[in-house]
Amino acid sequence: MPRVFKVTDVENDEKELRKDYFDRHTPIIICSDTANKGEKFLVKVRVGTQYLHPDDFNHFISYIQLWNRETLLAETRYLPGTFGNKPGNPEVDFFIVPPEVSMNLTAMSLCTQHGLWMSDAKAVKVI
Amino acid sequence: MPRVFKVTDVENDEKELRKDYFDRHTPIIICSDTANKGEKFLVKVRVGTQYLHPDDFNHFISYIQLWNRETLLAETRYLPGTFGNKPGNPEVDFFIVPPEVSMNLTAMSLCTQHGLWMSDAKAVKVI
Amino acid sequence: MPRVFKVTDVENDEKELRKDYFDRHTPIIICSDTANKGEKFLVKVRVGTQYLHPDDFNHFISYIQLWNRETLLAETRYLPGTFGNKPGNPEVDFFIVPPEVSMNLTAMSLCTQHGLWMSDAKAVKVI
Amino acid sequence: MPRVFKVTDVENDEKELRKDYFDRHTPIIICSDTANKGEKFLVKVRVGTQYLHPDDFNHFISYIQLWNRETLLAETRYLPGTFGNKPGNPEVDFFIVPPEVSMNLTAMSLCTQHGLWMSDAKAVKVI
Repeated sequence: MPRVFKVTDVENDEKELRKDYFDRHTPIIICSDTANKGEKFLVKVRVGTQYLHPDDFNHFISYIQLWNRETLLAETRYLPGTFGNKPGNPEVDFFIVPPEVSMNLTAMSLCTQHGLWMSDAKAVKVI
Repeated sequence: MPRVFKVTDVENDEKELRKDYFDRHTPIIICSDTANKGEKFLVKVRVGTQYLHPDDFNHFISYIQLWNRETLLAETRYLPGTFGNKPGNPEVDFFIVPPEVSMNLTAMSLCTQHGLWMSDAKAVKVI
Repeated sequence: MPRVFKVTDVENDEKELRKDYFDRHTPIIICSDTANKGEKFLVKVRVGTQYLHPDDFNHFISYIQLWNRETLLAETRYLPGTFGNKPGNPEVDFFIVPPEVSMNLTAMSLCTQHGLWMSDAKAVKVI
Repeated sequence: MPRVFKVTDVENDEKELRKDYFDRHTPIIICSDTANKGEKFLVKVRVGTQYLHPDDFNHFISYIQLWNRETLLAETRYLPGTFGNKPGNPEVDFFIVPPEVSMNLTAMSLCTQHGLWMSDAKAVKVI
């Protein structure tokens, strides 16, 4: 079965050695801590912080998903070459409208060679 | 076959009467006229300008695609409820890296009740 | 804007010369002429009949869609390598349940190098 | 984070009580134990065996994925209504070409109300 790589795996690994491998695959969520009920809310997801991921035809980030708990909110798909076949940090700005209750967001990204990766959870209070 | 609704269809229609119908389904591309070779380039796509599209379970915007001529660059999918089941203008910020040559971008959006809609083309010079 | 290649384009082209090019990209729908109301109904979509399409990393069939008039029913996505990087005729069997009224099905396929292609329409009577 | 429900969860649950809940969400893989190198290979994925899943606008199976270990091979997306808004067992026949080495297939399905579900693994020997 597809293993889902998580941030906690990274922390338990001999991470200094493989820091680049983990960093370049792990999505992060960047958004406010609070969202206004019924209003448009920006959630940026970026894959990697310090290390770049290839955009090669046989090795690229295929999709980025945004979840609220068990609910998939949105997903962006890429084809190889969308990033000019240059290494980078795939990134997308989703605009959602929060439900009535607070959210617990996570992002997932799929690398065509190294599988499925999950972000840390990000709690967002809806006010 | 699925008809693809285009901006030119709108212009040839008795548009005052159906302005809201066309407006709320048509994607628009918002980006600079020039992009720097090899650098990250923001392309915003928004569905509708003045009129809002529903986010009902049986009537929602299912996807937004970004194309460069015949090449699909990226696509964002939504589930019903991503916009809190409230009417709005679905919108996404794609970040791409342009190829060596100038681009001719178009966006497409799919409404689950009213089919496939295409934006005006947006020429982007790569410098 | 993305041109949508259709079977009629092929017929109007000097088709003997480019028969292979058109054939290997065009999806065809294979299903019964009639479907039973409320029952599972098989729709096979295959890309190409005589000529094979590559499954190269920089040249592959990215998706196959099944439409009923303006309504997208289902879509299958592929990654490069799903067909062992060997030329072939990508094919998928969808199982749908028809609505109350007769259907007019079409399929679309996306080639990462040669764009979007549309099948002939297939009328299906619901009895 | 999105929990991934697995067959083993079911077995450890008081499963008689919730058998229907687990059954109607869990994808199963139906294919031969062996595949011929370089030849087309059929993999059927079906969601549920005895209990039917709704196809309601606010509660439907959104996608079925087929994985070989960490590699996503193919994915089929559905819109609400593809199954005539009738309860059923969503099912798709993928045709893949196996790589040189043996495969370990799993399927995943996404319910818009109850999250992500994973099949048992299916080993396929490539001969």
